[in-house]
Amino acid sequence: MSFNKVVIFGVGLIGGSFALALKKAGAVAQVVGVDRIHDSLLRAKELGIIDQAATSIADAVQGADLVLIAAPVAQTPAILASIKPHLQPGTIVTDAGSTKSDVVAAAREVLGDLVAQFVPAHPIAGRETNGPDAALVDLYAGKKAVITALKENSAEDVARVATAWRLCGAIIHHLTPAEHDQVFAAVSHLPHLLAYALVDDIARKPHADRLFQYAASGFRDFTRIAGSSPEMWRDISLANRDAMLLELDAYTAKLAVLREHLAASEGPAIEAIYANAQRARHSWISAIEAAEKQNKEGGD
Amino acid sequence: MSFNKVVIFGVGLIGGSFALALKKAGAVAQVVGVDRIHDSLLRAKELGIIDQAATSIADAVQGADLVLIAAPVAQTPAILASIKPHLQPGTIVTDAGSTKSDVVAAAREVLGDLVAQFVPAHPIAGRETNGPDAALVDLYAGKKAVITALKENSAEDVARVATAWRLCGAIIHHLTPAEHDQVFAAVSHLPHLLAYALVDDIARKPHADRLFQYAASGFRDFTRIAGSSPEMWRDISLANRDAMLLELDAYTAKLAVLREHLAASEGPAIEAIYANAQRARHSWISAIEAAEKQNKEGGD
Repeated sequence: MSFNKVVIFGVGLIGGSFALALKKAGAVAQVVGVDRIHDSLLRAKELGIIDQAATSIADAVQGADLVLIAAPVAQTPAILASIKPHLQPGTIVTDAGSTKSDVVAAAREVLGDLVAQFVPAHPIAGRETNGPDAALVDLYAGKKAVITALKENSAEDVARVATAWRLCGAIIHHLTPAEHDQVFAAVSHLPHLLAYALVDDIARKPHADRLFQYAASGFRDFTRIAGSSPEMWRDISLANRDAMLLELDAYTAKLAVLREHLAASEGPAIEAIYANAQRARHSWISAIEAAEKQNKEGGD
Repeated sequence: MSFNKVVIFGVGLIGGSFALALKKAGAVAQVVGVDRIHDSLLRAKELGIIDQAATSIADAVQGADLVLIAAPVAQTPAILASIKPHLQPGTIVTDAGSTKSDVVAAAREVLGDLVAQFVPAHPIAGRETNGPDAALVDLYAGKKAVITALKENSAEDVARVATAWRLCGAIIHHLTPAEHDQVFAAVSHLPHLLAYALVDDIARKPHADRLFQYAASGFRDFTRIAGSSPEMWRDISLANRDAMLLELDAYTAKLAVLREHLAASEGPAIEAIYANAQRARHSWISAIEAAEKQNKEGGD
């Protein structure tokens, strides 16, 4: 048994899938759930995600090997503060937040010297649905889990967190918090903002009904991420504000260039940008598919 | 037999799928193909898309009931000019171009009084692959085909074109060319430009490799349309330039508003935009799914 007692703060999609995967791997004796929504705890117990709903934070954290914070990222400081008075030396705390610099800053402030026991991480997986019912035992299978270890962390604690995610089927990557936030601002956070902006723009036009009537599969895929939780993405946007502003400004500058080419009917310049994008995306998809093939062949 | 002789200019995805569907419906006696790429004609014949490769435009158009122009939209004027000297009174010409105002203007200029025989249309279906091998017999099943009839067209000719697309499984809609172009600038042409712009932006960054390494399924869906043909989308962008500039400017203004909210960390304002987009998209998806269900239940 890898873990005796695991505590999950937030028993929804992310925390619930983590618990289900550890249980399926036979890697945990007991999972205790904490959630601000009482019905979610009841449902998580019904679904076999948790063995027990916590009666208090003190009881929950008492004797735990591992605490996973899988609540909306803005709640992380308050959760860390609630854990701190009960945190014993043998317990590792980790999180699953989509941003890392803000979480690390909050953890340092709240935990002080105990920050050594906090190993920040981010599993790169999700769905558009939330709550315990959205949890999937294989949500993390073949997906990346990024650990942004702190200099205060012991190598052993970092390895324990990596083991937990590997047991869920994830592939471990290491980045600094700043690297992490810069990367995900570009490939995840900005695209979410762009998709939300497009749907909001169209929905507010007087002829919105006609526009949606003719929107087809390309629009559906382009805007899929605009189906995500507004609360969660508001928090991510605020938490990773500086990196997102840099990416948004670079993107807006690119749009300004394209607008100039379009206004001047400069076909070759427009085609050059479109063709470079198509080539880059094609190389990326080919690389993903090769990696997926290798993972399957190299799997257990 | 609905059609005795159908001529397809461009025997790739769009034209090839049209021919396959008409043949499957037993609605055409003979399909003749014209293509600037000789190998495409040979391949289309091998695949049973066409019965015969045209030896000349004159021979091809001679005695045709219906001519479909399914080549890149920039080639439409030249194709119309090549057809005109051979166009007989009983022949209807239609097209499958993604833009309509420019095609109609070109048709009026090239065809003169014969424009009455040209019924412009646009089937709303596609894939990221091109050429005869990409053609699918059911590409149009359940999809919309928009006819942007001209005041010069006879009701009978418009009905014949509608019949052809219905035989392919499509659902017929009617818009004016200007309405069509405004709608598709918003829900298709602009999203393509935005997706191309994002991938190009990322691909040109010094740390592009790392960024692509961490891009996941959300990025993949958001950028799927950036895998489309750069030549085709350059032509569409130029052909529908004015409507696209209007949509791009509205979108850029929306991004500027979001940027201000983000820079000022205005969480409620950001969430309001995200939530409105999520709601609108959810209603749209629900409406699509209800319509799909109805089509299935009402179908044969």
